[in-house]
Amino acid sequence: MAVGSGELGTLHRVDGVRIGVASAGIKKTGRIDTVVFELAEGSSVAGVFTLNAFCAAPVTLAKKHLAEVSPRYLLINTGNANAGTGEIGMIDAKSSCAALAAEVGVTAEQILPFSTGVIGEKLPVEKLITALPAAVGALSDNAWSQAASGIMTTDTRPKATSRQIDINGRTITVTGISKGAGMIKPNMATMLGYVATDAAIAPNILQEMLDVAAEASFNRITIDGDTSTNDSCVLVATGRAGGDVLSVSEGAVFNTLQKVFNEVFLELAHAIVRDGEGATKFVAVEVDGAKDVTEALKVAYAVAESPLVKTALFASDPNWGRILAAIGRAGVDSLDVSTLTVHLGDVLITENGGRAQSYTEEAGAAVMKNAEIVIRINLHRGQHKETVWTTDFSYDYVKINAEYRS
Amino acid sequence: MAVGSGELGTLHRVDGVRIGVASAGIKKTGRIDTVVFELAEGSSVAGVFTLNAFCAAPVTLAKKHLAEVSPRYLLINTGNANAGTGEIGMIDAKSSCAALAAEVGVTAEQILPFSTGVIGEKLPVEKLITALPAAVGALSDNAWSQAASGIMTTDTRPKATSRQIDINGRTITVTGISKGAGMIKPNMATMLGYVATDAAIAPNILQEMLDVAAEASFNRITIDGDTSTNDSCVLVATGRAGGDVLSVSEGAVFNTLQKVFNEVFLELAHAIVRDGEGATKFVAVEVDGAKDVTEALKVAYAVAESPLVKTALFASDPNWGRILAAIGRAGVDSLDVSTLTVHLGDVLITENGGRAQSYTEEAGAAVMKNAEIVIRINLHRGQHKETVWTTDFSYDYVKINAEYRS
Repeated sequence: MAVGSGELGTLHRVDGVRIGVASAGIKKTGRIDTVVFELAEGSSVAGVFTLNAFCAAPVTLAKKHLAEVSPRYLLINTGNANAGTGEIGMIDAKSSCAALAAEVGVTAEQILPFSTGVIGEKLPVEKLITALPAAVGALSDNAWSQAASGIMTTDTRPKATSRQIDINGRTITVTGISKGAGMIKPNMATMLGYVATDAAIAPNILQEMLDVAAEASFNRITIDGDTSTNDSCVLVATGRAGGDVLSVSEGAVFNTLQKVFNEVFLELAHAIVRDGEGATKFVAVEVDGAKDVTEALKVAYAVAESPLVKTALFASDPNWGRILAAIGRAGVDSLDVSTLTVHLGDVLITENGGRAQSYTEEAGAAVMKNAEIVIRINLHRGQHKETVWTTDFSYDYVKINAEYRS
Repeated sequence: MAVGSGELGTLHRVDGVRIGVASAGIKKTGRIDTVVFELAEGSSVAGVFTLNAFCAAPVTLAKKHLAEVSPRYLLINTGNANAGTGEIGMIDAKSSCAALAAEVGVTAEQILPFSTGVIGEKLPVEKLITALPAAVGALSDNAWSQAASGIMTTDTRPKATSRQIDINGRTITVTGISKGAGMIKPNMATMLGYVATDAAIAPNILQEMLDVAAEASFNRITIDGDTSTNDSCVLVATGRAGGDVLSVSEGAVFNTLQKVFNEVFLELAHAIVRDGEGATKFVAVEVDGAKDVTEALKVAYAVAESPLVKTALFASDPNWGRILAAIGRAGVDSLDVSTLTVHLGDVLITENGGRAQSYTEEAGAAVMKNAEIVIRINLHRGQHKETVWTTDFSYDYVKINAEYRS
C-alpha cells in the first residue's frame, strides 16, 4: 500500500556524477543492494546525519571522513544497517571503504559509507567487498533509477525526482533519490537521501543550503516517531555546468538554487511519507497561529504521532475528538481551547472548545474518505505556522513490523 | 485479548461507602453505564485529574466542586466522555449534578461528576438523569464488582482489588476499582480510578497520599501515549473504622497506609495495562543507573512507546536493535552507548555498544515468547531507577481503534 501513483518522471543525468549498482547477496540473492556514487574531482559535498546516540558505525565514519577531505565516492548497502554492532561494526565500515578505495584508486577517507537495513547484526562485509568490482564496473552516466531501487528496504517503490532550471543562460540540473518507509521521525535527515546538482557551489554554502532544505522537508515528516540510527542525507554539487562558484548565501542565484533544492527535498520527503509502512493516507498537519516554531511543532507532532488519530485516519472516521485530545496534551502553556479552530480540509470541525455549529458528520466523513487529507489547526495566539506530514496507522503497519525479520 | 487471568479476588466492603448502578442506555440498551457512589458524611476525599488542556466538562466541574466543599456523591457515566463539547457540555455536567443532588437531598456542589467514552458528542443528559432514581434506589453496601463493570468502556474485563490490614488492633479496609484500556499515557491519573478506605485521614494528608500513590502507579503506565481528556482518580477515607484521624504525613500509621495505597494503586494500574487494547504482552521497562528521574523516564518512555519495539514484542521477536534505537533517540545528553547494558529478562543482550558476546538469538526468543516481559536498561551513569509498564502493539489495537465508533 502507498498513497499516490509514485510514478517517477524523467531523471536527468547530473554531469560529474556516475552511479553503479550491484547485488552483494546481503538481503536476498539477486536483489540490488549495493550502490556506488562516483563524484567528479572538485565536487562540493554536504551532509546531515541522524542525532540518534546509537548512530551506526557508517554514520560515525561518514561524518569523520566528510570533515577531513572532499569525498569522491559514496558507498551504500541495504539489508544490514551495521548499527548496534560495536567495535566490529566500525572495523567493517572501514574495511568496506578501504576495499572500494583500492578498487578505484583513492584514499579510504575519500569514501562516505552508508548502510540501511536490520539493526544489530554484523555486516556481511566480505559479501559487500566481493560485489564492489561489479558496482564499479557498472558505473554509468545515468543510473539514478537503478540507485533509487537499490537503496530500498521496506519501501514498496523507488523515490526520485529531477528538475532543470535556467540560471544566467545555463541549464542547471538537480536530481535526487531517497528511501525510507518506517523508523521515520524528524531529527535531522530522517532517511537516506542523495541529491546532486551540476551547479558550482562552495562547500560551506552547500552545507547551509542543505541544512535549510532538510529542515523544511525531511525534518517535518513522521511515520512512527522512531528516529533511525542510520539517517543520512547528502547534497553534491559537481560544478560541471560551469559558471561562477556560488560562495555567498544571498542573491538571485542563491535564492533560485535554494528554492529548487527545497522543492526537490520536499518532494523526496513526501515520497517517503506516501510510501510509509502500511500507509493508506497522506496527511498534512498544519498548525497556524502559534507563538513560535516550538509550540507549532509540539501540536503538529502530538496530532501526527497520536496512534488514536492515526487509527481513526485509517478507518476514515472523522473522530475529531481524538484530534482535540492530542492538541490538549501537546504541552502548550496556557492553551485556550475556546479560541482555537480545527479544519478537516475545508470543513470547520471545532470552535469554542467543541464541535462547530456548522459541522455535520457527513461533511467530515466526505473529507476523511480521501487518500490525501489536510488537518488545519489554528491556535489563534501568534503568527507562526508549521506543517508536518504523516500517514495513517493500519493493520499493515503492524504486519510489516511484526514480520520484518521473519 | 488481555494478559493474565484478570480474576477479581474478594472485594471487601468499605464502611461508609454505598454504591448503586443503573442502565441509562447511553451506550447500549441494557448495559450498566451509570454508577453512583455515596460517601458517608465526614468522609475525606482527594482527587487527581488529567492535565490535558482539552479536559472534559465533568473534570473541570469535579475539580471546582472538590475545592469548594466535601463531596458526598460521585456520579459516573460511561459511553460518552462529555469532552470537546464546549459550553453545552458544562451545562450538561451541571444538570446531572443538580438532578442527583435533588434526588438525594444534598447540594449540587457535593456531587463530583465523571464521564468516559466517546469524545465530542453531546452527553445524552436526559437519559442519564432518568436513570438516577434507579441507581440511587440500588445503593448497597457491597456493589464494588458491579461498579467495576459499570465504568468499563473498551475494557474487556473489570478491574478491582481489595486489602485488609491491621492498624493498632483495628481492621482497615482499602478497596478500589479502575478502568482504562486505550488513550493511556501518564500525565496525572491516566484513567478512572476510585479507591476507598474506612481509615480516618485528614483531607490534606489524603491528597498527599493520593499524589504519591498515583505518581508511582497510574503515572507510570502507557499504552498508546495518548493522554485522555477525562482521566480522574479519587481516594476516599470514610473514617468509619474509628481511631484517631491521621493528620500528619509521617509515622508508622502513615507509612503503613501509604504502603497499602501504593500497592492497591499499582495493582489497579497494572490491571489497566494487562487489559490494554489488543494487548498480548505485559511489559515492564526498568531503567536503572540514570542521573535523575527525568532521564530515567525519558529512556523508559522512548522504549515503551516505540511502535517498532511494540510490534516486535507482539511478534515475540527479540529485535533488540529497535530497543537500542529507541534508547538512542530518547534525548539523553551525552549518552555513552558503549557503557550501557540491556537485559531481556535475565538475558544480557547488549554491552559495549553492540550485541553481548554471550547473547544467543535462542535465549532472547525464549524470553520474548512469555506473556510477561521485563526490559532492563542500565545507563551506568547515576543511581536513579524508574519503571514504566506497557503493552505490545497488535493487529487488535488497530482494529479496536479503527472500529471504535462504527
